[in-house]
Amino acid sequence: MSRYWSDIVSKLRPYVAGEQPRIAGLVKLNTNENPYGPSPKALEAIRQATDDRLRLYPDPAATELRETIAARFGLMAEEVFVGNGSDEVLALAFQALLKHERPLLYPDVTYSFYPTYSLLYDVEAIEVPVDHGFQIRLADYDRPCGAIIIPNPNAPTGIGLPRADIEALVAAHPDAVVVIDEAYVDFGGESAVPLISKYPNLLVIQTLSKSRSFAGLRVGFALGQRELIEALVRVKDSFNSYPLDRLAQVAATAAIKDEAWFETCRRKLIASRENLVSELQALDFEVLPSQANFVFARHQSQSGAALLTALRERNILVRLFAKPRISDFLRISIGTDEECARLVSALTEILAA
Amino acid sequence: MSRYWSDIVSKLRPYVAGEQPRIAGLVKLNTNENPYGPSPKALEAIRQATDDRLRLYPDPAATELRETIAARFGLMAEEVFVGNGSDEVLALAFQALLKHERPLLYPDVTYSFYPTYSLLYDVEAIEVPVDHGFQIRLADYDRPCGAIIIPNPNAPTGIGLPRADIEALVAAHPDAVVVIDEAYVDFGGESAVPLISKYPNLLVIQTLSKSRSFAGLRVGFALGQRELIEALVRVKDSFNSYPLDRLAQVAATAAIKDEAWFETCRRKLIASRENLVSELQALDFEVLPSQANFVFARHQSQSGAALLTALRERNILVRLFAKPRISDFLRISIGTDEECARLVSALTEILAA
Repeated sequence: MSRYWSDIVSKLRPYVAGEQPRIAGLVKLNTNENPYGPSPKALEAIRQATDDRLRLYPDPAATELRETIAARFGLMAEEVFVGNGSDEVLALAFQALLKHERPLLYPDVTYSFYPTYSLLYDVEAIEVPVDHGFQIRLADYDRPCGAIIIPNPNAPTGIGLPRADIEALVAAHPDAVVVIDEAYVDFGGESAVPLISKYPNLLVIQTLSKSRSFAGLRVGFALGQRELIEALVRVKDSFNSYPLDRLAQVAATAAIKDEAWFETCRRKLIASRENLVSELQALDFEVLPSQANFVFARHQSQSGAALLTALRERNILVRLFAKPRISDFLRISIGTDEECARLVSALTEILAA
Repeated sequence: MSRYWSDIVSKLRPYVAGEQPRIAGLVKLNTNENPYGPSPKALEAIRQATDDRLRLYPDPAATELRETIAARFGLMAEEVFVGNGSDEVLALAFQALLKHERPLLYPDVTYSFYPTYSLLYDVEAIEVPVDHGFQIRLADYDRPCGAIIIPNPNAPTGIGLPRADIEALVAAHPDAVVVIDEAYVDFGGESAVPLISKYPNLLVIQTLSKSRSFAGLRVGFALGQRELIEALVRVKDSFNSYPLDRLAQVAATAAIKDEAWFETCRRKLIASRENLVSELQALDFEVLPSQANFVFARHQSQSGAALLTALRERNILVRLFAKPRISDFLRISIGTDEECARLVSALTEILAA
């Protein structure tokens, strides 16, 4: 605490991101990065834009990128908001759309940045427990609220909800904004985007960090009817006119256009995940049903902390959340088949010891 | 207004950035971009980093960049904060350090994002009038306050304060954070950075958008003692773990290291500015004394709006602020000598008509 700090600073509990060590040779399965590189066309677009034009400000409205995203999802550019990673988009959504007299609802097991944003923007939030199978039960959201945010698939469980369930939730709360955080939707989930034309209270947030392999570039976006997008634009234009630099704009545009690359990578990843799930089950892991680029798995007899440490000693990073109910689960990002094989081999060795 | 919006949204008055038209052949002197490109070494650093590593998250702490900036300014890495453009750094500073029970003070003629940030974060602010010569009078800041923010040189006047004046201000307010916004300091101003070791209440903010020609990349930074930097880090880690992408981090690091390029470009620009000032004076403009990469000039008989329009018709963009006291001033970014000559030629023609 310092006399120079605004009051908010000492109240914060900052989010702790997964480790980004600078050690060569690690099998890095701890931050849900895509094992395949970004679209080669997107890398080429960066090279083409790397010249003296970088002396000029970017397009503050990222028009071409927004038009490209809109075309990809069958929307208008005015129904698209882009930001510096979906974390920034989420933060602006908390500030612009999720703070009301009645509380915000989100699952108790979910993306751990939500409580952080709630503190940052003084949003009253209620955590709604998932059930014993870690499923979100929509009946539990049938209560007065100002807004709802749910990841689909949920993080860090990987469990998805069908679109019909999302629609029922959105329809049941016509006066509340419902944000569906679809960071992982492209790995087998059902997107809520087709519902946008029907529901003015639905905002869908996606990212280029996972299915489009651009975690290193920081681009996320929100899709929704104009009234919701306008709120995000107003807050953004009061915060930072130019959140997306020139290289991020051209690369993201090219990445969204390269549907073939996207399809190939996500299919490979889904196949690797299904294979890994079988192998983990054979090693006596309980694996939650995943529609994401990670699995959430707990061993029948070994603690999560012990496994994390033993894997770390073998230069394999996975993630563990020291939180009630889930502290024995490992969140394992899906790597290449070779990386998954190294993990399984290490676990086999550890469990045999 | 919408029932879905948080209350704050309808209270905002978003900042309006200078136009970024996508028209070829314009002489673009409206947004204070550097007429010279970024360091060729920095462009090469981007090319070297444009590969599959972009699938991985950036270093959330931007360690190498912060160490490089620290070395450049004779500080420790813990005394450096980096963000997605100095606008983001300023916004986080408003939230983390400038909101107190007593009001924030800033000049009435200044960077017009400050009132926007004040509304966004509900910071009570008092605008302290500059004098008739548009000078900041430090005696006017001798009043109870929670914090102070002043650009040096000021925007959009370009008028600078000597370091001794800044030191007197910082020393006179030991209980208040004083932020010196040095976006334009490299074009002839006196930086307050050498005062940092002496004053725990001083935060200096700079950008790579101007003197390092990277407006298109979005990198800004703050320098100050650890207590102030920690407040920024805590808010940043509650907002966005990864504000700077991989390419921005490597490019900014290389740009800061390329001192020779920086020196050459800023010297050329200062010479062009001094030349332009003489030519504008010869055309009966009053030109405020500028230490920035722009001049602020008012014609003896023609209105600012009329000149802006006539220049626009000749494909020359400059900027005008429709605000009390300064609405007849044009803010003219310093271009290449050729661009300045085209401006002078156009003004000569317009004024002769």
